[in-house]
Amino acid sequence: MFNDRPRAGFFKSADTMIFLKDITIDGRVVDMLIENGKISRISPGIELSPADGADVQIMDCRGKVAIPGFINMHTHAAMSLMRGIMEDVPFEIWLSNIWKIEKNIDADFVYWGTKIACLEMIKSGTTTFNDQYFYPDAAHQAAVEMGVRPFICYVVLDHLDRDAAERQKKQCQLMYEKSLGWKDGARMQMGFHAIYSVTEEMMVWASDFAKEHGLKLHIHLAEYEKEVIDCKAAHKGLTPTEYLNELGILGPHLIAGHTLWLSEHDIELLGENHVNCVHNINSNAKLASGYRFKYNELRDAGANVCLGTDGAASSNNMDMLETMKTTALFQKAWRKDPAQMPIRELMDMATINGAKALGIHAGVLQEGADADISIVDTENSSFLSPAPFEANLIYSAHSDCIDSVIAGGKFVMKNRVVENEESILFYAREVLNKIQ
Amino acid sequence: MFNDRPRAGFFKSADTMIFLKDITIDGRVVDMLIENGKISRISPGIELSPADGADVQIMDCRGKVAIPGFINMHTHAAMSLMRGIMEDVPFEIWLSNIWKIEKNIDADFVYWGTKIACLEMIKSGTTTFNDQYFYPDAAHQAAVEMGVRPFICYVVLDHLDRDAAERQKKQCQLMYEKSLGWKDGARMQMGFHAIYSVTEEMMVWASDFAKEHGLKLHIHLAEYEKEVIDCKAAHKGLTPTEYLNELGILGPHLIAGHTLWLSEHDIELLGENHVNCVHNINSNAKLASGYRFKYNELRDAGANVCLGTDGAASSNNMDMLETMKTTALFQKAWRKDPAQMPIRELMDMATINGAKALGIHAGVLQEGADADISIVDTENSSFLSPAPFEANLIYSAHSDCIDSVIAGGKFVMKNRVVENEESILFYAREVLNKIQ
Repeated sequence: MFNDRPRAGFFKSADTMIFLKDITIDGRVVDMLIENGKISRISPGIELSPADGADVQIMDCRGKVAIPGFINMHTHAAMSLMRGIMEDVPFEIWLSNIWKIEKNIDADFVYWGTKIACLEMIKSGTTTFNDQYFYPDAAHQAAVEMGVRPFICYVVLDHLDRDAAERQKKQCQLMYEKSLGWKDGARMQMGFHAIYSVTEEMMVWASDFAKEHGLKLHIHLAEYEKEVIDCKAAHKGLTPTEYLNELGILGPHLIAGHTLWLSEHDIELLGENHVNCVHNINSNAKLASGYRFKYNELRDAGANVCLGTDGAASSNNMDMLETMKTTALFQKAWRKDPAQMPIRELMDMATINGAKALGIHAGVLQEGADADISIVDTENSSFLSPAPFEANLIYSAHSDCIDSVIAGGKFVMKNRVVENEESILFYAREVLNKIQ
Repeated sequence: MFNDRPRAGFFKSADTMIFLKDITIDGRVVDMLIENGKISRISPGIELSPADGADVQIMDCRGKVAIPGFINMHTHAAMSLMRGIMEDVPFEIWLSNIWKIEKNIDADFVYWGTKIACLEMIKSGTTTFNDQYFYPDAAHQAAVEMGVRPFICYVVLDHLDRDAAERQKKQCQLMYEKSLGWKDGARMQMGFHAIYSVTEEMMVWASDFAKEHGLKLHIHLAEYEKEVIDCKAAHKGLTPTEYLNELGILGPHLIAGHTLWLSEHDIELLGENHVNCVHNINSNAKLASGYRFKYNELRDAGANVCLGTDGAASSNNMDMLETMKTTALFQKAWRKDPAQMPIRELMDMATINGAKALGIHAGVLQEGADADISIVDTENSSFLSPAPFEANLIYSAHSDCIDSVIAGGKFVMKNRVVENEESILFYAREVLNKIQ
């Protein structure tokens, strides 16, 4: 089944040209030309030359608004097949049960789970995701076929077992060599699960491996309160962040999921080391692991704050637009101030900040940037309002307002249609039935 | 413009018969017959008799799931035209600005604003709403035309002005007489805004009027903290709930929106008087007026707890499914317990509890009940999961999974199409442009 792969995306040759006519960007109606995966021109009244020929795909975008594709900065995509597998249990019970199930998964599971995640991400306007899971090669293949840009890490999770650690070092090296053959600029990344599930030696090894090869290091950090209590008990009163600092792991190469339970000193450390911190409110709230995310403090300290959905086993979907609204509601609520979490910053967290973390020229609509674009249909009641477009998008609308998505200069959804959606659902259901 | 009314809903004569073939209810595949606005039969293998003739509308529902239509228990429907009119300001500034704008609205505004709200409610599976706003006759007319069941109150809001109070008594009496001519069992209700905006005499008058005529009394109660502080200062240390108790206003006829800032004694009073308490988390969180809603305590004390969206000026949409997820996330998060807010109770709050409050036989799928039904399409990734249907519906899906809606035995949406949607948007936009 793994070999019978329904592809998705309206795949054309890499040099297909897309012409978006009369599209609204930041309140202005313009034309946009996309060539070789990049936004080549944004201007009113662009005229196509006859030389462009029949290869150009023209879309009439009157009444539609372009926004940058969302960048989902903390996912375990394949866990889409574990959605709702356990509802309403505490974080630690949830995690230990997930680990039990994960002993039985294979590359096939990861491949189809990632396909489903990509399908959901495309339908809710996400064009890039930063993933941490097993069988990275299968995940990478699924994402590339769907046309979504994957950042896939080799994740060290040795459960504090030294033999496992040595095996993983070798696997990681092999994976890295293989990844040098990946196309379209895709690169493997490094990752380890968390300070409580990985040996100290392996955390340092993973971080050094990342630095040596210019990769990012994707981890979980300070996700739940007991992690902090246990860390202090085990490491001379150090918090998880302080502990990583002692190990020399903090830095701009680090992408830390959650960063929820932080002291003032932790925030200082994350800020001055320009760590990329990823907030995942839906997962945190649903597992009741916390909600008082220190957005303002992290931003002011110098950290780069991004947004993620986490895996669907906790969140329970991959919808960045929903995540943005929930983020705003919690920030306003717990800080008792409706002016908190301004819309513009929320958009940045979901787009450009992720691009900065990953070192890509995306998350922004300008000439020369990667053509990762969502086209929003505003002809519905959600946008019947004097509020700024972004306020209507985040607070009123749902992701079904996203009409079409371009990723890497190719259409991956057109008028809500993703190629092969039915067959992807069919095969994924078969895999799901097998593990139940 | 008010007279040129695009109707919505696939309006048929009242005695149209609907036959839902092979629909799933509570995990069982059955047929459902709807006649004269009621569910007349639920059973596998129902055979239509030739006498049913051509009048019966048959829908093939294989792969689809029926749920009761949602009952939105606290709305200001017409405020859909004020969506996003002020973002990110504190509750009191927000409210005083809303009041300024409301000085200039007219029946036309309420009519079109209510139409837009009904359009949104239909598209997200709501079949009944409990409304408090001005020009109740215009709101009632708009809702009836859309095919959504309105509970519309005459709202007393005298801003502590005695002359206004006397005028409103007369208007209310006239409204009541007029409402006796309303069709389809629709009845006017009573309401007053809140203890801080209405004279004591008028609160008692409104409550007595409601009791005398067997109507419900729809109010705001304990929505924000300052309301409690001010009330204690003005009324010998009494909380708003204690104050209403002193005035003899608490009782099962009362539908109290928000009930957010409550003492233990308040919860006891609301419980033993079987008050209907309506939680509106999206509005509360967005205005930062609070989030620690005492669901468990109110339920255990004997109150009937329901859900609402509030008006779109604060929430910013009318989506009950979104409200359910946000409710669960906040309950789990602030109580630090992922087992809080069980899915089944959440469904009840959004359906049967509202029906109990309003005294209607709805919010449930059984023979003899009102035919208020949403038909959910499960052929998408949100439902590709071993979790219970309701968990996938609330946590994974969005309201666009609702394929069709039957309200009062008539289709008001079929395969995502609401009749006249475009012209409703067109006319509403004209009204919106006028007030800007």
